[in-house]
Amino acid sequence: MVSSVRPSATALAQMIGGWQGRPGPAYRGLAAAIRQSVLDGRLAIGARLPAERELSRALGVSRTTVAGAYSALRDDGWLASRRGSGSVVTAGSGSFYDSGLVPVRRPADPEADIIDLTTAGRAAPDDLLDAAIDRAVDRMRGLYRTDGYFPLGVPELREAIAARYVAAGVETSADQILVTNGAQHGFSLALGDLTHALDRVIVESPTYPMALDLIRHTGRVPSPVGLLPDNDQPWMHDLLRSAFRQSAASTAFLMPDFQNPTGALMDAETRALVMQLSEESGTVVMVDESFRLMALEERTLPPPMSYFDARNSGVSIGSLSKPVWGGLRIGWVRAGSAVVGRLGVARALGDMSGPLLDQLIAVEMMPDLDAAARRQAARMRENFDVLRAALAQQAPSWEVIRPAGGATVWVRLPQAVATDAARLAPRHGVLIVPGTRFGPDGTMDNYLRIPLTPQTERLRAAIPRIVTAVQAAEATDVPARVAGWLT
Amino acid sequence: MVSSVRPSATALAQMIGGWQGRPGPAYRGLAAAIRQSVLDGRLAIGARLPAERELSRALGVSRTTVAGAYSALRDDGWLASRRGSGSVVTAGSGSFYDSGLVPVRRPADPEADIIDLTTAGRAAPDDLLDAAIDRAVDRMRGLYRTDGYFPLGVPELREAIAARYVAAGVETSADQILVTNGAQHGFSLALGDLTHALDRVIVESPTYPMALDLIRHTGRVPSPVGLLPDNDQPWMHDLLRSAFRQSAASTAFLMPDFQNPTGALMDAETRALVMQLSEESGTVVMVDESFRLMALEERTLPPPMSYFDARNSGVSIGSLSKPVWGGLRIGWVRAGSAVVGRLGVARALGDMSGPLLDQLIAVEMMPDLDAAARRQAARMRENFDVLRAALAQQAPSWEVIRPAGGATVWVRLPQAVATDAARLAPRHGVLIVPGTRFGPDGTMDNYLRIPLTPQTERLRAAIPRIVTAVQAAEATDVPARVAGWLT
Repeated sequence: MVSSVRPSATALAQMIGGWQGRPGPAYRGLAAAIRQSVLDGRLAIGARLPAERELSRALGVSRTTVAGAYSALRDDGWLASRRGSGSVVTAGSGSFYDSGLVPVRRPADPEADIIDLTTAGRAAPDDLLDAAIDRAVDRMRGLYRTDGYFPLGVPELREAIAARYVAAGVETSADQILVTNGAQHGFSLALGDLTHALDRVIVESPTYPMALDLIRHTGRVPSPVGLLPDNDQPWMHDLLRSAFRQSAASTAFLMPDFQNPTGALMDAETRALVMQLSEESGTVVMVDESFRLMALEERTLPPPMSYFDARNSGVSIGSLSKPVWGGLRIGWVRAGSAVVGRLGVARALGDMSGPLLDQLIAVEMMPDLDAAARRQAARMRENFDVLRAALAQQAPSWEVIRPAGGATVWVRLPQAVATDAARLAPRHGVLIVPGTRFGPDGTMDNYLRIPLTPQTERLRAAIPRIVTAVQAAEATDVPARVAGWLT
Repeated sequence: MVSSVRPSATALAQMIGGWQGRPGPAYRGLAAAIRQSVLDGRLAIGARLPAERELSRALGVSRTTVAGAYSALRDDGWLASRRGSGSVVTAGSGSFYDSGLVPVRRPADPEADIIDLTTAGRAAPDDLLDAAIDRAVDRMRGLYRTDGYFPLGVPELREAIAARYVAAGVETSADQILVTNGAQHGFSLALGDLTHALDRVIVESPTYPMALDLIRHTGRVPSPVGLLPDNDQPWMHDLLRSAFRQSAASTAFLMPDFQNPTGALMDAETRALVMQLSEESGTVVMVDESFRLMALEERTLPPPMSYFDARNSGVSIGSLSKPVWGGLRIGWVRAGSAVVGRLGVARALGDMSGPLLDQLIAVEMMPDLDAAARRQAARMRENFDVLRAALAQQAPSWEVIRPAGGATVWVRLPQAVATDAARLAPRHGVLIVPGTRFGPDGTMDNYLRIPLTPQTERLRAAIPRIVTAVQAAEATDVPARVAGWLT
């Protein structure tokens, strides 16, 4: 696969910065740095590398060094030369392409002491939820005489969601809101409406595995844009430009606040750029804002993506699963009213209408939403501090990337053994997800995603188990590069 | 479109029985009877008529009469001669092909006195629901510490649903049950899993409009099998045989108990035939059993379709929307466990998990399900008696087909004016659905579906309005054969 991503020499130099400290000949060091960028997902499979002369100029090294590095990468199966395409990144000989199956979990064995860190779902905020349920049941009694169907959502909830966008500075009417059964439902409806089979969908790499799975399951093709592994400014403008201009993708799926799994926050300038690129290219931008209320520290956020979308061309997806609870199936889509009408037809054809009681509970929760989210964010912060301190002590060579928000931490391992570690983890009493699940190309085997949602004591207990699993993987020669890492 | 339906001469003679009483020349009477069979959906667009000689023999009329009738039908656009296909039924010059849009209803104008009879949704059984909610909320508190996700359904509910099949004589384990957000959700998942775009799906004609809409929306092609307009034995074995043997349909969607809109009940012999045809042809049978508990009179039902499906090859779809309430989004699919696993992956990719509180309410409602259904059935019976008596008096020429069960009545009008009547109905204070919505070919314009779910007084008040709308349609020369009959 030749993707349209074509990093400039400057962008590639930025991606692999720091490679010159490596031991051995320069060309080998450069090759290792480029391979590492592929493995951790910054550099997409299919990306075209800059010409040797340009890269040598950008790096300030001899052209012989670059030629030697490209040649070594070619020998090891990491680069292919294609007529008219130059040097194209390939998967390497050992790459693992995940089967794409959703981990529909077996009910946990209560006898086994296994801590499940495969999802970032949270526990419910008991007191807030209890009070909302009582009021919602009263409200629902007033609707017993109706047939209970509201395919677009209960009007009060659509109004309340629209009002939140208005409060964030984005003009929004209730007919621009479709209430869904959570964020995944909104993404599924939008993807079905805005794309066809074989369309390319620009995604961040790493990105949310269930989004990737859905893109593949429906015959769409993910077109990855690598993120830098630091949360200062991980979206590289250069890569975004080339992705929107050259991929002919019908849509893009991005998580500006906050990115899953990295927890990064997209700055206002990048948001404006994305919407400008969308307007130029016609690529429709879908953003998942499920984590928007979950800043790790209290801060002023950039306006939501829809603020930069004067034409109302894009789709914004939200959810109560993160600030409240996944047991409530409440999410929404904000879009132009014509798109919302079309999505409403698709939703009615798919499952008629959403759960009425959940919607009424959501109506009751809306005034408490910020408070519920702040409480949850405080717990994330506490858990992050616990995780960072424990890993600093138990696994000092791991790089813990501080999330700006969200519910997960993206941890970089010194070796690409995450798939092996995940396979071995159950023996050590923990279930973890390897970085490969988050990359469309099966790369990023040197990353783990660790959720911040467990009870603090559970998380604390899990950490030595994770460390042991990774050490066991490092010590084994047998690769676990087979499907079914969860078994 | 040439469908593969090819009624035998005997079957066609049965369909048009009683035509010989018509005034005028015999060939005209025969042509009118055949045209009527097309208009009311018994004879599908695309069906191939028997050769003239065979039909003349089956009817006991001269071959000249049959030739004259075919010729008249050809002149009026109801038949086309296709090389190699013989005489194929076409749509006639005035046929209306519905736009296929789901009627996503606008919120009713509380100022306007308009009775909405477009859906057969019911009001909630207050007392039973209230008690179940209280217990379910307690149950849910026990799950607050989990993330709330059960993609396949809450285990207790899967067990309880499986137990109902076992009680009906069908061996079923909980891993053969997927809990869905209602019957439409189950159908949508099964259709997505078992069919591809451009596949044919055998449907009854008339059938449920949202099923037709979904089949079309997803690029599948409905392949209709006409039902006889009486509820004694409306499924013609001859037509079923030719549909399964000759259509190359990947799937069939049937409603054996009870059929929507006709309210017919499929007998055990026909069920056995359907599953035998499924085994022979490889066409997978999907049945919607949502109305199974809603027999108009208490009676012993034939075993459910799955009883005749020893190979567990088919899919059975159920729902609490009819016996309980559509405001609860609870339905299910029963299938082989491998199919359930695949549907579970698709459901997780589509919306992650169903509403937890609704599922727990359903767990609590299960022991009361038969009682709730009996109560609702008694109301249907009462409403049917009201409807039949009122129409006998106000519109004696209408034929009210007694449903064996379900929530709707299929009413045959003397003229094909249902689309016009539905367009005029709001002016007369009522919303109705014309028969054309229930036929894949836009035929059946001489039928209306009237729901039995409204409050009895509302239904009583609606009847003269419907009659007036139909009379107004009969009196007008302007056809309403344009899209958007609901405006």
